Amino acid sequence: MNTAPPPSPQIRGPSDHEVRSQIVDAATEYFGLYGYEKTTVSDLAKAIGFSKAYIYKFFDSKQAIGEVICANRLSTIMAAVDAAVGTTNSAPEQLRRMFKTVVEAGSELFFNDRKLWDIATTSASEMWPSARAYDEHLRTLVAQIVRHGRDAGDFERKTPLDETANAIYLVMRPYVNPLLLQHNLDGALEATPQLASLILRSLAP
Amino acid sequence: MNTAPPPSPQIRGPSDHEVRSQIVDAATEYFGLYGYEKTTVSDLAKAIGFSKAYIYKFFDSKQAIGEVICANRLSTIMAAVDAAVGTTNSAPEQLRRMFKTVVEAGSELFFNDRKLWDIATTSASEMWPSARAYDEHLRTLVAQIVRHGRDAGDFERKTPLDETANAIYLVMRPYVNPLLLQHNLDGALEATPQLASLILRSLAP
Repeated sequence: MNTAPPPSPQIRGPSDHEVRSQIVDAATEYFGLYGYEKTTVSDLAKAIGFSKAYIYKFFDSKQAIGEVICANRLSTIMAAVDAAVGTTNSAPEQLRRMFKTVVEAGSELFFNDRKLWDIATTSASEMWPSARAYDEHLRTLVAQIVRHGRDAGDFERKTPLDETANAIYLVMRPYVNPLLLQHNLDGALEATPQLASLILRSLAP
Repeated sequence: MNTAPPPSPQIRGPSDHEVRSQIVDAATEYFGLYGYEKTTVSDLAKAIGFSKAYIYKFFDSKQAIGEVICANRLSTIMAAVDAAVGTTNSAPEQLRRMFKTVVEAGSELFFNDRKLWDIATTSASEMWPSARAYDEHLRTLVAQIVRHGRDAGDFERKTPLDETANAIYLVMRPYVNPLLLQHNLDGALEATPQLASLILRSLAP
């Protein structure tokens, strides 16, 4: 007694995955034009021609959409940072490039995607999972570079590794966290190489 | 032909100086209760029982009053910082105490005089003369401590003094500038000793 396979909704229309990306793409554009904080899911639904109920089938809330946009953007930044660090094997140079790339990516977002900036500040002040993951990724990267520099004999080994890595991250944080960076952009491009040099002096064996 | 001395207005009523302090005291209390940004000179005049015109005889604008309040508060903080630094002759310890006192004073203002906090953030974002003078005072103090530590053989002398002092100030700034400090208060008391230790490692001869 063969039964026909249950109808697959994927075949009849776009997959859930596709609809989700469609909503995220449209929302990125919409928030990019009108800002995240000031718009509602209703505004968004109207603008992209979906019903509000249909959007809620895929996302619990406006924040859930914002969170995906934020995670996408932060993934791009993390990939750029990892790539910049990967271009050299020298730990001191890796720290310099990491710092530089993070600041450049933040400034780029602030100056060229200003309307998306409020997603960044909201995610940072509410500690969204994507913001926390970004923070964690950068902290781990700092620790890896410090460990690598110690192994290569470039950095001192007396201070506990955790303490060193954490303090370095604290120096970088005002240029990483968007809530702080927005008050730090004036002069950030001159400040960060000086801070990187101070960090490297603190790491001298 | 003796003429009588011109009548002295000081004798007839309160001196300009007294009226100015009276207005500043009343405004400090008033802004402390209702905030600086949201109140006007009219509100203030009504509350302290002077006419608006009378207040304008002594101050050009609300900002001019705010500026005196801000300068008074920053003078108190600078005196506290100078006193903390003066309690030791060891340059490394002076840097630690400077950092600690600045952060404590900022936190105190934020948590205990929250309504005056918006004068602090406004003065920092608009770079009022008092905010600039405070910044300058702290920068000069850092340079003095670094010079003293170099003379005493506690600190390295290879890096140009200006570069060293400036980079140290950049590390401190997120905990000094109220625009940054308000996003940094969580964990500031743990972060600042770690940053001070990193600074001291960077200064090792």
